[in-house]
Amino acid sequence: MVWTISVIGLGNAGLPLSAVIAENGHSVIGVDVDESRCAMINRGENPLPQEIGLDELIRRHGGRNLKATSNYEDARGSELFIVIVPLFVDEGNNPDLSIIEGALRCVGRVISPGSTVVMETTVPPGTTAGPVRGWLEEESGLSLGEFYLAHSPERIMSGYCISRLREFPKVIGGVDGVSGEKAFQLYSRFIPNLKKVSSSEVAELIKVMEGCYRDVNISLANELFLIAEELGIDFYEAREYANHEFCHIHMPSTGVGGHCIPVYPWFLIKEMERRERFDSVRLLRTAREENDGMIDFWAERIVMASLKLDLPLSRVRICIEGISYRAGAKGLYHSRNFALARLLMRKGLAVSVSDSLYSCEELEALGLRAGGAEGCHISFDPYALKIKYNL
Amino acid sequence: MVWTISVIGLGNAGLPLSAVIAENGHSVIGVDVDESRCAMINRGENPLPQEIGLDELIRRHGGRNLKATSNYEDARGSELFIVIVPLFVDEGNNPDLSIIEGALRCVGRVISPGSTVVMETTVPPGTTAGPVRGWLEEESGLSLGEFYLAHSPERIMSGYCISRLREFPKVIGGVDGVSGEKAFQLYSRFIPNLKKVSSSEVAELIKVMEGCYRDVNISLANELFLIAEELGIDFYEAREYANHEFCHIHMPSTGVGGHCIPVYPWFLIKEMERRERFDSVRLLRTAREENDGMIDFWAERIVMASLKLDLPLSRVRICIEGISYRAGAKGLYHSRNFALARLLMRKGLAVSVSDSLYSCEELEALGLRAGGAEGCHISFDPYALKIKYNL
Repeated sequence: MVWTISVIGLGNAGLPLSAVIAENGHSVIGVDVDESRCAMINRGENPLPQEIGLDELIRRHGGRNLKATSNYEDARGSELFIVIVPLFVDEGNNPDLSIIEGALRCVGRVISPGSTVVMETTVPPGTTAGPVRGWLEEESGLSLGEFYLAHSPERIMSGYCISRLREFPKVIGGVDGVSGEKAFQLYSRFIPNLKKVSSSEVAELIKVMEGCYRDVNISLANELFLIAEELGIDFYEAREYANHEFCHIHMPSTGVGGHCIPVYPWFLIKEMERRERFDSVRLLRTAREENDGMIDFWAERIVMASLKLDLPLSRVRICIEGISYRAGAKGLYHSRNFALARLLMRKGLAVSVSDSLYSCEELEALGLRAGGAEGCHISFDPYALKIKYNL
Repeated sequence: MVWTISVIGLGNAGLPLSAVIAENGHSVIGVDVDESRCAMINRGENPLPQEIGLDELIRRHGGRNLKATSNYEDARGSELFIVIVPLFVDEGNNPDLSIIEGALRCVGRVISPGSTVVMETTVPPGTTAGPVRGWLEEESGLSLGEFYLAHSPERIMSGYCISRLREFPKVIGGVDGVSGEKAFQLYSRFIPNLKKVSSSEVAELIKVMEGCYRDVNISLANELFLIAEELGIDFYEAREYANHEFCHIHMPSTGVGGHCIPVYPWFLIKEMERRERFDSVRLLRTAREENDGMIDFWAERIVMASLKLDLPLSRVRICIEGISYRAGAKGLYHSRNFALARLLMRKGLAVSVSDSLYSCEELEALGLRAGGAEGCHISFDPYALKIKYNL
């Protein structure tokens, strides 16, 4: 059976999802504000080359089973609307729902009685049944019950979206019982490993909790790494043998970047602090602050490495070998490695940057000096956490 | 080949270890200060009936292959001395090494050239190569090299010691290369799944890191539980679906008790704070404080449950259904459930306690009132975290 599904947002998460749905034999309308990206997809070209397996799916379905458009009107008549647009936090770390609101209001104008809307964007618990429902009702003139609404958090990982969608357990929860059942039936046609949970709030909390687990455990790894360094003990050897069936110590890092892990804990921290439940988020807040503070530790390490050089500190050339938030995934949102490069520059140090994911022009447009490790006294690989002397 | 191994400390960890070594065909001298416990073991009676499989081993080897004694002289001539005595923290949460020092000084007096000493007690990293080595050298008049010294942290869990020793990976690390190799060879005769690590410090840190992982993750579970309660979302349902291959959210609790998890983080916290590295233990300290503070949350919950009763608060009878630090394991060291009962009593509430592991006489000797849920208005099961109305 061929039927129409709309996916709102063709970004890192939405495009792989659209392609997988198309590959399952459904016709998909993908809506994105970026017209040149839409044109590219319709020509069968993949704007996310790092996604394993996506090239082939876009080549096969782009412009055919998967039609990209910037016009919400093209989505009118769809049985299922999937909203998977970005959510950022503002400078005070409060979630900024404006992009979501804009998308949902547009969706509200093109849904019909019987339509099902599923939020995929990770949101603070209560968002789907609260503001999202409100925006849809206002714009459509319909009431919940005339349309259906559920949340199914994306659970992808950049680079591995396709396999995640095919294999990884995915949850879905409705804002009411009928919505949950309806959305579950529709999603089951293209998500093989799908679990229905009792409400959209549970589905929302599941995803946010996963992010909190990661953030706290990365902070724990960073703290244990700092302690081991202070004690002169090899953290990596200890970690290898400490980990077993019941122990999962993570890897240390320069902190946590990207759109997910450093963002989700704030959803809970800010909501609890608004309710004056300060004691209920102390661990989450400490972890967040410690992860963000790791660049100070690494900046100090890099400066201290200069002690061994017989040179004025201002003349020590330092190369930061990567500014992306994660090795192999191009992206600067909350990237601690980009923040580290800027921190060292602000201190007045001679910093250059090399990153195979960014051209010299791109680096310079970011206010950085492009240049490889070979011309520098000291280089730092922020993914391997290795400081090296080169000259 | 039959040879002699001494185990110093026949407590919850040392006795199962002694029995497993005896079962492997070696003759074991077990040294313990508690003479009545020694006599019991030599009669073939098991003082730890909750240890699965231990009854049979003690019956078979007690007084035969496994001889218990309070006299260190009986251990003289042993090839291997295993020290597995308790370590507590003092009121300021600093590790109190006095029991260990006492045991090691006694061991020092009975070792001979060629003896190997292995510390099993979990200790702050550096203890084995530092003070332990010092005590042994002082008392024996020997130098390291004339005897061998290593650390192999016990990795048992009360109730499951025997299977843990038979199956679970165990690590061992020497204070020098020869000690590590020697201790590894000796331990390989009775520990099937043994890994050699590069130093005693690494072995020490491995065990302390595991404890920190547990403490922080229990604190995270408690925090997420508090948040879910505040939001009116079922934490347990969210946890079930949040957990997968890469996510291991623990269970919430009244806090963490026993000799291990609530103690080990302090080893690192106190050492780092002594070195003025306050920023390196913020997460560990926050987790420790939050876990200890969970009894305040549960005390408030119990008091709030009284709101529904048409009775003066002082006349509401409350039953705490368990004071042990963990369900099924008798023990009060840092038990948060015992602390909760006392906290409620200090508030002036009418508290009784029932716990199948403790007789009425034992409860009363602890200053508690013995009494079951059936005579109380409200009962609280601290293991299931369930508050119930009974009258």
